[in-house]
Amino acid sequence: MKKFLNNVDTLLGESLSGFAKAHADIIQLNSQPRYVKRINLGNRGKVALISGGGSGHEPLHTGFVGAGMLDAACPGQVFTSPTPDQMLAAAQAVEQGGGVLFIVKNYAGDVMNFEIAGEMLDYPNATVLVNDDISLPKTHSVGRRGVAGTLIVEKMVGAAAENGADLASCKALGDKANLATASMGVALSSCTVPALGKPTFELKENEMEMGVGIHGEHGRETQKLTSAAEIVEHIAGEIHAELKPEKGQSVLLHVNGFGATPLMELYLVYELAAQFWQKRGLNITRSLVGNYTTSLDMAGCSITLTLLDDELTKLWDAPVHTAALRWGC
Amino acid sequence: MKKFLNNVDTLLGESLSGFAKAHADIIQLNSQPRYVKRINLGNRGKVALISGGGSGHEPLHTGFVGAGMLDAACPGQVFTSPTPDQMLAAAQAVEQGGGVLFIVKNYAGDVMNFEIAGEMLDYPNATVLVNDDISLPKTHSVGRRGVAGTLIVEKMVGAAAENGADLASCKALGDKANLATASMGVALSSCTVPALGKPTFELKENEMEMGVGIHGEHGRETQKLTSAAEIVEHIAGEIHAELKPEKGQSVLLHVNGFGATPLMELYLVYELAAQFWQKRGLNITRSLVGNYTTSLDMAGCSITLTLLDDELTKLWDAPVHTAALRWGC
Repeated sequence: MKKFLNNVDTLLGESLSGFAKAHADIIQLNSQPRYVKRINLGNRGKVALISGGGSGHEPLHTGFVGAGMLDAACPGQVFTSPTPDQMLAAAQAVEQGGGVLFIVKNYAGDVMNFEIAGEMLDYPNATVLVNDDISLPKTHSVGRRGVAGTLIVEKMVGAAAENGADLASCKALGDKANLATASMGVALSSCTVPALGKPTFELKENEMEMGVGIHGEHGRETQKLTSAAEIVEHIAGEIHAELKPEKGQSVLLHVNGFGATPLMELYLVYELAAQFWQKRGLNITRSLVGNYTTSLDMAGCSITLTLLDDELTKLWDAPVHTAALRWGC
Repeated sequence: MKKFLNNVDTLLGESLSGFAKAHADIIQLNSQPRYVKRINLGNRGKVALISGGGSGHEPLHTGFVGAGMLDAACPGQVFTSPTPDQMLAAAQAVEQGGGVLFIVKNYAGDVMNFEIAGEMLDYPNATVLVNDDISLPKTHSVGRRGVAGTLIVEKMVGAAAENGADLASCKALGDKANLATASMGVALSSCTVPALGKPTFELKENEMEMGVGIHGEHGRETQKLTSAAEIVEHIAGEIHAELKPEKGQSVLLHVNGFGATPLMELYLVYELAAQFWQKRGLNITRSLVGNYTTSLDMAGCSITLTLLDDELTKLWDAPVHTAALRWGC
């Protein structure tokens, strides 16, 4: 295992400490229990948005804490759910009278722990479950996973909360953004979890893993590595069949790198995906390309499409000031 | 070689086309000859800032074209200098009466081609040569290389040009920012140039390459892989010895990933570097952590320190609106 590392047990704490120092103008780190909270909490009465999940997906979620997006994020150990005490302490720190909305990626551990926290919480609270990964069938026993679409939900709900939307409206909006969003990913390599010290799965030189999640698990199918055009055609085709957008539909196209894929390749994938949907008459009005929802050092990427209406477009465009997304302020 | 790829010969063009589509609100791509230019050119009479170099370092330089930074960037093939016709066409497209300043990383091919362009250009022009990489001795035959400090020079000169500084002032300021900046990098893996199809050098599982540039060339020395703390101590120590900052000095600390190193590790490196300089009484007032000056899919990172005064701090903080750096507007 080749990593910048002192000790597997201290890696997360040291890294979060560096994150907090580098972005002391935006966020503050609480170490015990562990959460990152926004410094300037915005208007009193605002709904508090809290997310979290296993670490190893940076900048998700800590990089999205700040004005116009999350109020707090609870990082677990690598690929491991945070615990309810983290969520409760974070809620205590950022609740301002508007209640708490949890934004949770659909993974069993995360769902269970946020549910426990919700039950123990003294504030009104609700949960948006993100399940944008269409690699798994809708009928899968634990449902579809939450992946790169999560940041889109967080951004849009964040803008609404900043504008004063109440808890029920924020919850409804999050569900709407999630439903409008579909993602699918492909890996060219697995990743190496520090505590494990070796790749979580093996791929041959001519193989790729189609339909992967973001936790180093096997995907839907190991396939022969093909051209970028064929890969994008396949993934975009599945997303298109899922969302069934009509001609003229405005969309946000997000190409997300898993951590080890150069921007040059991500923009190639963006180009091919943009061609795919332009050919089908869609109107790509918003874009995001880069490493936002990663899987440690995995080579690979995912494509996410969100069907936009005026409301979602406006919320996407609203000012945001976080470590990883920043515009308009 | 595992990459998202259709054809090695079309990769750069396809990728730039995707880049132009994703950021059509900021930049425009000219394909023949190849350059990326800022859409809103700012005030008439403004000095035109142009950079460029081999591709494979994205987001450098195309990702830094926009308000408050570069007016144009000329991308060559992967790790290959752009040609004078690109620079001349870019200058023609963005010159507005204030003359042209080239910002050039110190590599033989880039220096030669920008020099030819400067001689052929009908506008007043000057060049800032960036040579922040202290891995090589000052006495090295072709001088020190320009690496991650380049974006710092581009950002600061970009702000000055936007504020109306003239060509001589922009040139002097660029030289000043370059002199105030030192960088050094370490690689845990080499990178794979698409046209070559295999890693540019080999490292054993327990080895790292200390003092690397950004073109997949061997570094100063192949060393045994040690702890992150020892690696940072070594690199920061060399930078400290070079810049000799006094106690109380304000600095910008930039930890740059080479493309395949997760943010979790980059923030760990940032934490250790911050501790190093805090112990020595420095005041880290500005930070930048992420993959900004990459070397394709290389695992590794560099540390850059810039000594700040009020002028440089103000220029760093000034509004910037590019694909890869955005704040204040």
